[in-house]
Amino acid sequence: MIEIPARRGVAARLAVGQSVKVINTFGQQVVDTWAFRAGDPREFMSMEHTRIFIGRIIPLVGDPLVTNHRRPILTLTEDNSGGIHDTLVAACDRWRYELLGAVGHHDNCTDNLAAALGALGLTPPETPSPLNLFMNIPVIDGNRIDVLPPVSTPGSYVTLRAEIDCIVAFSACPQDMVPINGAAMTPTAAHYEVLG
Amino acid sequence: MIEIPARRGVAARLAVGQSVKVINTFGQQVVDTWAFRAGDPREFMSMEHTRIFIGRIIPLVGDPLVTNHRRPILTLTEDNSGGIHDTLVAACDRWRYELLGAVGHHDNCTDNLAAALGALGLTPPETPSPLNLFMNIPVIDGNRIDVLPPVSTPGSYVTLRAEIDCIVAFSACPQDMVPINGAAMTPTAAHYEVLG
Repeated sequence: MIEIPARRGVAARLAVGQSVKVINTFGQQVVDTWAFRAGDPREFMSMEHTRIFIGRIIPLVGDPLVTNHRRPILTLTEDNSGGIHDTLVAACDRWRYELLGAVGHHDNCTDNLAAALGALGLTPPETPSPLNLFMNIPVIDGNRIDVLPPVSTPGSYVTLRAEIDCIVAFSACPQDMVPINGAAMTPTAAHYEVLG
Repeated sequence: MIEIPARRGVAARLAVGQSVKVINTFGQQVVDTWAFRAGDPREFMSMEHTRIFIGRIIPLVGDPLVTNHRRPILTLTEDNSGGIHDTLVAACDRWRYELLGAVGHHDNCTDNLAAALGALGLTPPETPSPLNLFMNIPVIDGNRIDVLPPVSTPGSYVTLRAEIDCIVAFSACPQDMVPINGAAMTPTAAHYEVLG
């Protein structure tokens, strides 16, 4: 098990057929998740392509997650977290925290993605809208969205299987100004494990 | 009134305070819409940033549409089309039509964006997920999405006001393999007019 430190990002290479288990160690931590094709990161997991591909906003076990070339890159193969994840909301960034009233630097998932890929010698071609694991953004009456604490519990997890060789990146979201990481608004670590 | 030819894209410059009226001339045509900051197109209208900014999937009259820097770039100021637009689904692209069974080249909104900006001497930094005007993608039971004909009528329109100097691009979506441009699956022209 490898730590995704609180407020930080990490990335790992997956070969086709390998899986990655993402564990919500303390139960209330959102993990922003990206995947880029090995060898050409300009092809990446895309939420706006995935939604129309699967006919849903939130993937279910068995659903593929597709790239901006509409090719499966990951498949959701296990989920005991309650099944609530988000595909609607951008990664947090410096401007998100400025709007919330933060003064000076605030850790954010956009910078965490760049740092995580940078540690592998890569630069993200852009900041794709992430698969926000464990993040609870319900759609109410077909249009309104809300920002709620996760429904996941300590130790619950999802497993994602690589459909092509890829780089996955995770950010333990540093949001501590709205209750997206639980009512305590205290970001924690999460963990991942590569299987197979 | 300037034509957005059927199956094609066009772009125009807007100064702050100007508005653009987008007219669904024949009533059933989806118009994929983008906006890029003048002088730095790496800042552009972003659906994933707009949804959390306005707390809704579909903008209402009065709502700002914000960039990937969370700054308003356009505001929806008028809408007599029935208020049904889409922010969930990627622009169509060559892969969308390949998956639907098209053989050989098929016009698509992604290429149309590149051609429209190219006519102004610009290259899109990426293909942002568009504001799909008049496109009817309902969210059912908080998760499932469907693909339905527009509810708009001939001559109905929306008006978007520029909040910063920007380039707007439109594509009269060439989708003719699913009924997103009406049950007849026949893409048509639309029109726009710059005001102020």
